[in-house]
Amino acid sequence: MIRFECDYAEGAHENILKRLLETNLEQTPGYGLDDHCETARELIRKACNAPQAEVQFLVGGTQANTVMIASTLRPHQGAVAAWTGHIAVHETGAIEASGHKVLTLPSENGKLTAAQVRTVYNEHWNDTAHEHMVQPGLVYISQPTENGTIYSKAELEELSAACRELGLPLLLDGARLGYGLAAPGSDLSLADVARLCDMFYIGGTKVGALFGEAVVIMNKKLQKDFRYHIKQRGGMLAKGRLLGIQFETLFTDGLYEQISRHAVEQALRIRRAFSDKGIALRYDSPTNQQFPILSDDAVKALGGKYTFSIREKYDESHAVVRFCTSWATQSDQVDRLIEDIAALRQERP
Amino acid sequence: MIRFECDYAEGAHENILKRLLETNLEQTPGYGLDDHCETARELIRKACNAPQAEVQFLVGGTQANTVMIASTLRPHQGAVAAWTGHIAVHETGAIEASGHKVLTLPSENGKLTAAQVRTVYNEHWNDTAHEHMVQPGLVYISQPTENGTIYSKAELEELSAACRELGLPLLLDGARLGYGLAAPGSDLSLADVARLCDMFYIGGTKVGALFGEAVVIMNKKLQKDFRYHIKQRGGMLAKGRLLGIQFETLFTDGLYEQISRHAVEQALRIRRAFSDKGIALRYDSPTNQQFPILSDDAVKALGGKYTFSIREKYDESHAVVRFCTSWATQSDQVDRLIEDIAALRQERP
Amino acid sequence: MIRFECDYAEGAHENILKRLLETNLEQTPGYGLDDHCETARELIRKACNAPQAEVQFLVGGTQANTVMIASTLRPHQGAVAAWTGHIAVHETGAIEASGHKVLTLPSENGKLTAAQVRTVYNEHWNDTAHEHMVQPGLVYISQPTENGTIYSKAELEELSAACRELGLPLLLDGARLGYGLAAPGSDLSLADVARLCDMFYIGGTKVGALFGEAVVIMNKKLQKDFRYHIKQRGGMLAKGRLLGIQFETLFTDGLYEQISRHAVEQALRIRRAFSDKGIALRYDSPTNQQFPILSDDAVKALGGKYTFSIREKYDESHAVVRFCTSWATQSDQVDRLIEDIAALRQERP
Amino acid sequence: MIRFECDYAEGAHENILKRLLETNLEQTPGYGLDDHCETARELIRKACNAPQAEVQFLVGGTQANTVMIASTLRPHQGAVAAWTGHIAVHETGAIEASGHKVLTLPSENGKLTAAQVRTVYNEHWNDTAHEHMVQPGLVYISQPTENGTIYSKAELEELSAACRELGLPLLLDGARLGYGLAAPGSDLSLADVARLCDMFYIGGTKVGALFGEAVVIMNKKLQKDFRYHIKQRGGMLAKGRLLGIQFETLFTDGLYEQISRHAVEQALRIRRAFSDKGIALRYDSPTNQQFPILSDDAVKALGGKYTFSIREKYDESHAVVRFCTSWATQSDQVDRLIEDIAALRQERP
Repeated sequence: MIRFECDYAEGAHENILKRLLETNLEQTPGYGLDDHCETARELIRKACNAPQAEVQFLVGGTQANTVMIASTLRPHQGAVAAWTGHIAVHETGAIEASGHKVLTLPSENGKLTAAQVRTVYNEHWNDTAHEHMVQPGLVYISQPTENGTIYSKAELEELSAACRELGLPLLLDGARLGYGLAAPGSDLSLADVARLCDMFYIGGTKVGALFGEAVVIMNKKLQKDFRYHIKQRGGMLAKGRLLGIQFETLFTDGLYEQISRHAVEQALRIRRAFSDKGIALRYDSPTNQQFPILSDDAVKALGGKYTFSIREKYDESHAVVRFCTSWATQSDQVDRLIEDIAALRQERP
Repeated sequence: MIRFECDYAEGAHENILKRLLETNLEQTPGYGLDDHCETARELIRKACNAPQAEVQFLVGGTQANTVMIASTLRPHQGAVAAWTGHIAVHETGAIEASGHKVLTLPSENGKLTAAQVRTVYNEHWNDTAHEHMVQPGLVYISQPTENGTIYSKAELEELSAACRELGLPLLLDGARLGYGLAAPGSDLSLADVARLCDMFYIGGTKVGALFGEAVVIMNKKLQKDFRYHIKQRGGMLAKGRLLGIQFETLFTDGLYEQISRHAVEQALRIRRAFSDKGIALRYDSPTNQQFPILSDDAVKALGGKYTFSIREKYDESHAVVRFCTSWATQSDQVDRLIEDIAALRQERP
Repeated sequence: MIRFECDYAEGAHENILKRLLETNLEQTPGYGLDDHCETARELIRKACNAPQAEVQFLVGGTQANTVMIASTLRPHQGAVAAWTGHIAVHETGAIEASGHKVLTLPSENGKLTAAQVRTVYNEHWNDTAHEHMVQPGLVYISQPTENGTIYSKAELEELSAACRELGLPLLLDGARLGYGLAAPGSDLSLADVARLCDMFYIGGTKVGALFGEAVVIMNKKLQKDFRYHIKQRGGMLAKGRLLGIQFETLFTDGLYEQISRHAVEQALRIRRAFSDKGIALRYDSPTNQQFPILSDDAVKALGGKYTFSIREKYDESHAVVRFCTSWATQSDQVDRLIEDIAALRQERP
Repeated sequence: MIRFECDYAEGAHENILKRLLETNLEQTPGYGLDDHCETARELIRKACNAPQAEVQFLVGGTQANTVMIASTLRPHQGAVAAWTGHIAVHETGAIEASGHKVLTLPSENGKLTAAQVRTVYNEHWNDTAHEHMVQPGLVYISQPTENGTIYSKAELEELSAACRELGLPLLLDGARLGYGLAAPGSDLSLADVARLCDMFYIGGTKVGALFGEAVVIMNKKLQKDFRYHIKQRGGMLAKGRLLGIQFETLFTDGLYEQISRHAVEQALRIRRAFSDKGIALRYDSPTNQQFPILSDDAVKALGGKYTFSIREKYDESHAVVRFCTSWATQSDQVDRLIEDIAALRQERP
């Protein structure tokens, strides 16, 4: 079986393992106060063109989202998110467990628009019973989204302008940020993301690291006491240098971009193979997740050799499935998949 | 500077790094559902003589304590703990953030007694206003304690009997469990701990792993839905196999015991050096943490070459400090410390 | 201005005030442990034909819902509700503040069906990633609903059967329960409600009392320690007898039914007036809330003399509004409203 | 049996009942937005000499404390309180249920000192591991305390100055504030309390009302969105005017002070009776709670005719008990108690 069901099926990029070995017996202070973390912070600040940013390292995405959101909101506020947002669907109510409602908005492609944010804000404040309802307290987006789609620079500029005008911090979940930045046609740089968001994280777990997410806090007000929140939510790694070493490595010599590009290239090869076969893609994703609409026969045929995830039923005899590539995806594995796609019985969804 | 301030200053035991390298490009399912985790579970069940135990892996101690406690209690219940307990002091209110009070009891040495537990329970239920007070819902202990002391088998038997009689689950924080089991004079086996507790964790972070704690759930009722709680509290590692591989390694060929013994031997050498010099130890610790009472001069003298932590002021001119050893402590570093202790100016606390 | 905007614009039924006066200088124990509360409990148990029920009194609806739900769920569970449910919309995230997600389902009329409950349950457990999602832990319904509609006995039987089969406690918000029981065509008795639900409350605030809701707990398991939850959530009234006296009065000589009938009769007069005028009703409500679809002109015309609430925009020139009656609504006030409705300019939504 | 066990054994002052009757059929908006509430607010602002204060009404004390504290703190902060503080002991962990630790300090008489507050603050920030510990976020005191003692103006000035210097909001629980202001020797006015605290509440439940506490928010920053917190925590009364009417009445013609003085006078008569008999008082209380140290024989003798609460065991044969008076205490009932105290067998604790 060749695994395309997620982007965390393997360990870490070899450079990272090498550095972990080299530094293994160094003695450092704990909790992210070591030199590796400091160097990694500096590298990230540079990549973000954000010398005043605070950078903190957490182990995983649910943790990062919970700490970012719970440290930003007051108790009566909620997080505005697309109904497909990871925090709304796949975190077992972690945000609610911290006391906050996720205020979901419909979204066909996984993205929110500035207009939607303005509407939800205005509806809240125009309602005479607004204090009987959860107050919108921040906007949460993912780049790329859970559907593989990406915000353009213009879209993010607009969203950011709306958020700033309304006083709503804009938080970005970058679990797969590398794959978004590497998407062909993406006109957003890491510095743009930093400039336009109040807080975001750069995903490591899905982009070359064993684990780890780098939270970048641009908004001065949100920087205050952030490390208390990390500790309180169980996110402060004793051997914090493990996170520093990994991000140091990812942000040296362009490794993060390079491996992100690789994953996207492989994903687009798979996408082309489906398209060539006349198999439609559910979302227009230029990133490492692809969502073909497969007949049950095709699911069965490919399911014998490859793992992928069933996302939703499409109609009586078709399903939307997800194929993921990653930094670790091997070209020859994709070759084989492409061959098998080409050999599928012709069909039309 | 040689670091004795904590037991997480280095990376991981070389066997673990070796295995991480060997398995790096294996493709596995995520979230602890892989074969390495299964094998590690099986090894731990055997070591615990507990074929029915559920074993789950988490990244760190605060996380493990929060998940164990929040999954056990109902909202109106609290965790009974010594006032020195890690959950009461050093977790930034993680337990309270999950909605529960820590009901602290005084303790000179860091241990709770069966008599104390009975008293707090009876006082609650005898109070006619008991529903105006937090109900004791579980008992939390650490082995070894935060003061380095250990429960004997007789003490743990008594505590366990009291808890079972009163219907209070007994939870044990084993962040340094290896060092407790390896203490000279300890008559407790891992199987005893499993037999006497409802839930506990076997610490990896401080005992040879890069990170990781293995939660062992003996009580059937507490096993139900435990993995939801892990996910909700941000403790479910995407690449769960990293935890499986580490515990697989630690529980192969007695590695966990062997490296624990090493740490304790080094700690006892340090202890003897202080005693020989007439320097008192604040707690009678047979484990890897030692708490000498040092004059300010001695603190300054040793502080120039070694890191250690200041625990509390003892009197006008003395402080209780902590020296920690670990699986990674090098014998020759301890040699040098012992020489420097011997060379201290004579003093009496 | 005559107020039809809510059912809590006046004080209490005169019998209640009379009893409060008569008992004012009695000395009683606090917190609902007095004889009046005991008598009220007994009267309610009888009316519910439920001698084993636990009855507890709370001050208001948000409080009652929060205590009922937070005492029933485990941390990783959520409350299944219609998206119009009061807990989903108008309680400022009180349920989320207690750590739980509200799992909303679409509903045109405010009701849930047994089929919907089965679907959401099965979807959860069939999803291989179910532990990454909030587990359905109870079903919350309102009778009458926030749209004034009511469950028939057959519907509630089906819903209850589904819930029991799936192990989901069924909780019913009876803020306006009296008005539901008094609806013409309603075939549900209070005893039916008690038989079919695990927990529910009988609303007093909107049905004749100054304030107060009587929570009836049928499910033995959910009775345990319920009073701790009341106290923890700030719902335990010091002078609990105030609640006892009010429910004692409401459940003496059929007062609760009698005043409920009055409110419904007045509401149906208003409904007929709108229908006679050709003004459509948004929901088919046989209870004390009526939802005509008014032109902006009609809103303006009636708005000069009466208060009512604007529920939502219907189209460019119409809105859905709500008129409420209550136990206190005076017949002659309704007469005047009916005249003014009849005098509206003819229109068609 | 004559009840001295608490100060909420009766209903309400007759003026209040009279006003409730007179206003019963008035139609008003809900949720405290009516004219009675506005008038009551204005009267309280005047009594506090605080034209800019926000005044909101809640039903009970646990609710008021929870809303005040949860709306003030950020998630990683705790409330500094005496270990006898109501929030620390008798609210079933309501503060913890909102996510916050109560940071208790020892206190012999129930009061905190400015020096204690400075110490706990400095200890926190001087600890290098401070982000591993709960950050002090506010100071909570009670006036009078749970032991009946009171802060002098000098003491409160000092405490307030320390809090302002350290940036810690000072919150005061005034469940029995009237009895504190009326204590002979008290040099604190309501305006002093308002000037020196950031937020406090004026207790109605124990001082003449059926129920109700008036929260006064002096600190502009803490006023923001306060009503959302009331609603979220279940404290927003639908018929809010019931609270307005009660406080309107209490703050008209000096009723609040007048009935408070009465209670204190009766309490001091009881105190003198015990003193005259040579029975020691556990705390030096000039307010409506008195804590004699009674022999078991005396407890039995008085217990046959009067209710009072047992506070704690004093020694083998004595207990500290509490006698409470209130606005409703009748002089002749106190006469009888005094006779019975005088008739006790002589003893010496």
